[in-house]
Parts: sequence; C-alpha cells; structure tokens
Amino acid sequence: MIENSTIAAISTAQGNGAIAIIRLSGSESFAICDKIFKSKLGKKISEQKANTIHFGEIVNGNKIIDEVLISVFKSPQSYTGEDSIEISCHGSEFIQQQILNILINNGAKLANPGEYTQRAFFNGKMDLSQAEGVADLIASNSVASHKIAINQMRGGFSNEISDLRNKLLKFVSLIELELDFGEEEVEFADRTELNKLVFNIKNKIEILIKSFEYGNAIKNGVPVAIIGEPNVGKSTLLNILLNDDKAIVSDIAGTTRDAIEDNTIINGINFRFIDTAGIRETTDTIENLGIKKTFDKIAKAEIILLLIDASTTKEKEVLSQINSIKQRISDNQNLIITFNQIDKVSDYNQINISDLTSVNISAKENINIDILKKVLSKNYKSLDENNIVISNVRHLQALENINSALERAYNGLQSDLPSDLIAMDIRESIHFLGEISGDISTDEILGNIFKNFCIGK
Amino acid sequence: MIENSTIAAISTAQGNGAIAIIRLSGSESFAICDKIFKSKLGKKISEQKANTIHFGEIVNGNKIIDEVLISVFKSPQSYTGEDSIEISCHGSEFIQQQILNILINNGAKLANPGEYTQRAFFNGKMDLSQAEGVADLIASNSVASHKIAINQMRGGFSNEISDLRNKLLKFVSLIELELDFGEEEVEFADRTELNKLVFNIKNKIEILIKSFEYGNAIKNGVPVAIIGEPNVGKSTLLNILLNDDKAIVSDIAGTTRDAIEDNTIINGINFRFIDTAGIRETTDTIENLGIKKTFDKIAKAEIILLLIDASTTKEKEVLSQINSIKQRISDNQNLIITFNQIDKVSDYNQINISDLTSVNISAKENINIDILKKVLSKNYKSLDENNIVISNVRHLQALENINSALERAYNGLQSDLPSDLIAMDIRESIHFLGEISGDISTDEILGNIFKNFCIGK
Repeated sequence: MIENSTIAAISTAQGNGAIAIIRLSGSESFAICDKIFKSKLGKKISEQKANTIHFGEIVNGNKIIDEVLISVFKSPQSYTGEDSIEISCHGSEFIQQQILNILINNGAKLANPGEYTQRAFFNGKMDLSQAEGVADLIASNSVASHKIAINQMRGGFSNEISDLRNKLLKFVSLIELELDFGEEEVEFADRTELNKLVFNIKNKIEILIKSFEYGNAIKNGVPVAIIGEPNVGKSTLLNILLNDDKAIVSDIAGTTRDAIEDNTIINGINFRFIDTAGIRETTDTIENLGIKKTFDKIAKAEIILLLIDASTTKEKEVLSQINSIKQRISDNQNLIITFNQIDKVSDYNQINISDLTSVNISAKENINIDILKKVLSKNYKSLDENNIVISNVRHLQALENINSALERAYNGLQSDLPSDLIAMDIRESIHFLGEISGDISTDEILGNIFKNFCIGK
Repeated sequence: MIENSTIAAISTAQGNGAIAIIRLSGSESFAICDKIFKSKLGKKISEQKANTIHFGEIVNGNKIIDEVLISVFKSPQSYTGEDSIEISCHGSEFIQQQILNILINNGAKLANPGEYTQRAFFNGKMDLSQAEGVADLIASNSVASHKIAINQMRGGFSNEISDLRNKLLKFVSLIELELDFGEEEVEFADRTELNKLVFNIKNKIEILIKSFEYGNAIKNGVPVAIIGEPNVGKSTLLNILLNDDKAIVSDIAGTTRDAIEDNTIINGINFRFIDTAGIRETTDTIENLGIKKTFDKIAKAEIILLLIDASTTKEKEVLSQINSIKQRISDNQNLIITFNQIDKVSDYNQINISDLTSVNISAKENINIDILKKVLSKNYKSLDENNIVISNVRHLQALENINSALERAYNGLQSDLPSDLIAMDIRESIHFLGEISGDISTDEILGNIFKNFCIGK
C-alpha cells in the first residue's frame, strides 16, 4: 500500500508571499536535492545531519532559479516518517512553479491531496483519527473548532478509542477462553463484572455520540434562527451580524422568502445565522412556503432569536408571540427575545418577560449589537475543557455501529445468551473501533479521508 | 537608524495552506521563543545551535496552540543579520493569527512591510539595489522578469555600479591631488587617459539607461497594439490571446472606444496587449477621439499587430493600409500583418507583402493562434543573457543624473576647464551611484522603497 515514489508539492497557501515552502518526501529526496541544489559551502544535502538548515541555490542546468534554505529531515524522525526536505524559497508563484517543475523533472512525483499525512499514517506516525485531526486543524477558524481539532490531532480521541478497544479485547478473550473449554462450563469471565464493563463502555460511547451535536455545531457553526413577524428588521440584523449585505433589505414586508444563512465568528465561537421569512397569516402561496421553511429552521436551531419591533408592537401581542414560539421549541433550545428599533421609542419601558433572556437593540442604528453578541456567546452551551468532542461524521457512524453491537451484547448478557453470540457482538464493536483508529481500513475509507486534504499536507 | 525591537510577521501567502511560516527577528527572538515554545525534548531554543530545527508546541499559558517546527538562525548568519527564528505551523489562518498575537503579547513588534529586508540592508547583508531585487523577485511572473530580478538580487547590477564608482573615485582622487599642489601645474592624471575613462564609463551608463526600455517592458509587459479597421475582429483576437472576455465583442463596427489593455505571459514573456478603436473616416466625435487614442497607443507600442479581414479586404486596400501604418511607426517598432477570418476564405491566396511578417488566422475559430503567439515571441527583442538590465525607475533617474554629470565632466575635459570644476561633476556622478547602492540614502528614499514590499519580507 505504501508507494515508494518521492513526492513533491507546494505546502504554503497559494499566491505570492514573502516566502513559500516546497516539500519533498521519500527515499529519493536527498538524491533529487543533490541534483538541483548548490550549497554556498559546497556541501551535499545527502551528507548533512538531520534537522539542519542549509543556504544555497536551486539550479536548473546553468540557470539559477532562486536562493533558498533547505531543511533536512531523516527517516523516521520526520512528519511522514520518510527522508524529507523542505525548500524555503522566495514567494513568487512563478518561482514556486519553477522549483516544483525542476523537482518533477528530476524524478519526484506530484503529491496527491493529503499524501504526506497519508504516508505519516502508513508509517505509524499517527492513527487515522489523528490524521483527520490534522485536516480539521488546518480548516479550524475559531477557538472552539481549533480546540477540538488540536486535541484530536494530538491523540486525545485516539487514546480514548484505544483504551476502550483494549478493555473490550480483554473481555472478549476471556469469553473466548471459556468457549475453548467447550462443554466444561467454566466461567473465567465474571458475568457481573462483564455486565458492568459493557455498560460503562456503552455509556462512554453514548457520551461521544452525544458530543457530535456540539462538535458539529462548532465545525459548521452554532445554528441561530432569526425569526419574527414580517418587516421587523430580521434581514437588517443579519447583515449587521455578518458585517455584510447578504440579505436584501426593503421596507416591503415579506421580502425574504428563502432562508438566508451565513457564518461568522463571535467571541471565538462560529455561529451560523439563519435569516427567515417573517411569520404571519398570509394567502400568498410562495410566502406560505417560506413560513413553513421558517418553522423547519426553528426546529434545527440551537438558539432562536425572536425579533420584535419595540416601536409598534403592544405588550399583549408580544406575550402572545412569545407563547406561540415557546410551544414550538424544545428544552435544549435557547430563546432570546430581541426588541428592535428602540431608538424610535422614547422612554422605553421594557415589557415584563422576566423568565426569558431579552436584549434591546437597534439593528439599523447599530445600538447594543455588542450586547446582543455577548448574550449569544453566553447562550452557547460550551462543553467542559477536558471533554473529548467528536466532529467527524465518519466517527459518528462508527460509534453508532459500536453502540448497536454493545447494546446487543449487553442484552445478551442480561438474558444469558450463549457466550459465542456475545463474543460475536463484542468482536463487531472492536472492528468499528478499529475503523476509527485505522487499525482496520479499506482503500475506500482512506480515499474518502485524504481526498479532502489540501495538497502539500 | 536601526531599531532594536524584535519584529514578527507571517511570511507565507495569505490564506489557509498546509503549512505557514511566521518569522521573528531581533535580539529578543530567542528569549521570546523560550517563553512560548515547549520543545518535545525539553530543550531551550536559546541554547540551540545555529541552523538547526526543533519540534515542539507553541503554548499560551496552559493552552496548546499548535505543534510546530522552529528553525534557529544566529547573527550575523541570518537573512536580516540578526538573531532570528522561523516558526513552521499548521496553515490555518486562525492558528497563524493566534501565534502572531502570542509573539506580540510576549514583546515582539509587528513588522512593517519590507522590514526584514530593510534590516538586512542596514546590517550590510545586501546593498539597496539588491534589496529592490528581492521585491522584484517576489513579484516576478515570467522567465524574463525573473532573470532580471534574480541577477539584481544576487548583486550583478551592484557589482557594475560599485566598479564604476571605484573607477571614478580613483579618477577624482588624482584630479584632487593636482589641486593640492595648487599653482605648481603638476599633472598626475593623464588627460588622454581621463578622457578615455570618462567616455567609457559614460558609455556604460548609457547602455544601462537604454536597457530600461527593455527592463520596463519585461516588468510591465511588452506593449503590443492590436490595430485595424472597424469590425475586423480586434476584440475577439484580444479575448483569445488573454483567454478572457475582457473586451466587449459585437458585430457593430466601432464597439470598442476606449483602449482596452491587459497582460498575459506567452512563452515566458510578459506581453501587454492593447485593443484599440478601429481606424476609419468617421464624423462621430467620440469615435474620432477613440481613433486619436489609437494613434497614441501605436506610438508607444513595441509591436504593432495590424489585423486585416482576409474575407472582405482587397489587395489594393491591404497595401494602402499597410503603407499608411508604416508611415506612423519607427524602425524600433515591429509590424506584424495578421490576416483574420481565413476560415471564411476558400482557396486563400496570400497577398504579396514579402518584406513584412505576416500570419493567417481565425480569431473566432481559434485557427493558427499558436503560430501568431510564436511570431510575437520571435518579434520581441531579447537582450543578451549576460547583459545587465535595469527595470527600476529610481535607478533610471539616478543613472540619468550620473550621465548628465559625466557629460559635463567630459565636455569640461575637452575644453580644458579648471580641474576643480571637473572634480565637482565627477563627485556628483559618484553621489548618484551611491544613491543606487544605498551608500548614500535618505529616510525618504528608504521609505519609498520598503513601503512597496510585502509584509513578512
């Protein structure tokens, strides 16, 4: 499965920068480098120590392409586990391409997306969930997504999975030992202990499964539905929250028909704001479809931001609106009542909604938007610093399979099913744990994971 | 003039990449790094050898920000000449910003554009024209502009300037020695030799000045004016040469009024194509203004591409058009006759224009466009590989000042002017040579040069 070719790619972001890095990894790295690099001190890269840096020129025949620094990494002490070099060149795209071409012409192969990390996985430098953490780390754009990704890359999740796997392996080996003794009815594995163990592991798996809701929100944004009657300023609020002119704003009630969504980072948290069609009784078919969509969006949101025009809405109407929304949302969802256009109301007396969170703003005049942002951050359910959070659909699916298998094993233990049937279920859960770590993997799984990497990593 | 602060900046291109590089330079580089970096082997960066690489974590208090590689460079053997480190981190923009913030919070200052190179200049690592070569190298986008820039960065131009300066210094010191002897009428400097020397140096300066036309064309593109009668397909040709839909194409003669320009690289040469208003007799005022502009563009072009509709134009008209254009262009300009729409002409007999370069194409059907591109590349006046080419307006101005001063000195020698007057002119030319190398510089000159650098270089 491990290719022997030496791979090359530009590893820094696309475009002109001050400097750029081109990576070379594989058994021919030093030999290729010797052909195209002239050290200022006449040294050959192949004769240099690991983890050292050398100044010189990349040459193509007689032509000098650039003055560069070469970093030398030796197997197995490198990212990929192979002999590697990194070329730090001037950041012109033209030069980057020239150097890459020279490497290819001297025997390197253009790296596939994620091929460096894939080689690191094959060479035992990291397990599969750590490799996935690398991709998530590169894509991380907020404090929260960064925390999940770096924990995963550093092996937090891998350790948990490996710990559970070892416990289940010990368990299954005891059961299988009994089977070896066949008819003798020995019981190496204390059934009460086994019950407890499966129950505990199942519990841990369920906590991990539950963490996905949080992890997914972090990765894709905590969903916040902005709802309210037509023309209360929902699109204006969305635009100011996004610092953008995404939603078309007009004075005509019912302007927004599609749910408009976009992400923005507030106090280190990635929020996904969803502007919705205003809720009202209407005979307009298209608008009614929009309102139906709004209710769908409310169901999927973690935070519901009910916007009310403070300058026109009466207390009774407010309370009736709040009650009608309250009936639609679950205990897991947070409702924030937001009174808009408070700049138009002189001597504003807040309507008494003491048991609910409320904020007074003017979206148009940018009043108290900072306060609203603070309230949003506070209403986001942060998990304990030390909890492991999964944010990867592949892991979720494997964990659900593990959970089903453990459920069957647990029920089997309860109803004194034959040990071989229980052992089969435990083996299945061990299999899926191995899929997460990559102890068990197929070309298809690997292909799906690494195709989503950027080139050069 | 040299600040003592330690500077930090992201040096790779903006955006998410596999990896990114953050640079730190100044006397506190190692001390700052020790505060935020935990080596995997428990080593302090400040105790490491120059040109070595170390794996570990960037931390902010208890929080792990990223796993990184640190490269150690020690004064004076670094790019800036100062103690420096480079942090190679995961290429998430979020992580890049986090690390930069941590560096700033621990005492580093955000680097100004070009500040690393400016420090390299102040610390005698390169002269001013080499520093300018660095910026040009990063901006280089073609074989030709790359060649000029890397030659300049590596000191080709600096050596030439320094050589001329030394010769003039020797010359002026001989003259000034004579002045010391006052009335004694000794002549240390052989006047014939002096004449020859000033003549030769002036000649070299003039060659450099002339090279600017070429250097500038390389940097900003070789100007090619596409001209012809209305509706012969000039805009269609421009679009196909640029692989773009820049010019509005219509069947209505006179659609293009403004001269539309854009650059593209063909066979390693940067060409600037200029689409022009069609030339014809018209009473339309705006169109006439356009035609006037066309003639201005012809005057400034290096290559004039006269487009003729082969399907409608008669031989007599063709010859008359060619003659009328020939009168407008100089010997330095190249004329390429391009017959368009040859796909519409069955059994095409080429009009006899034997002394001129001609190509038959169809812009619309993409016929022979490759041949046209080859002809364009051939018609571009390449300079000898080993010639020094200047492409910098600041150098041009200094060289023109040097030339004037040398002209006065030369004439002074011819007409036996007093030695002190001649010495003054030579001193002036030496001053301007020093401005190119940066031996003489002002804050204003330096400010103008480095403000155009990217941050991180």
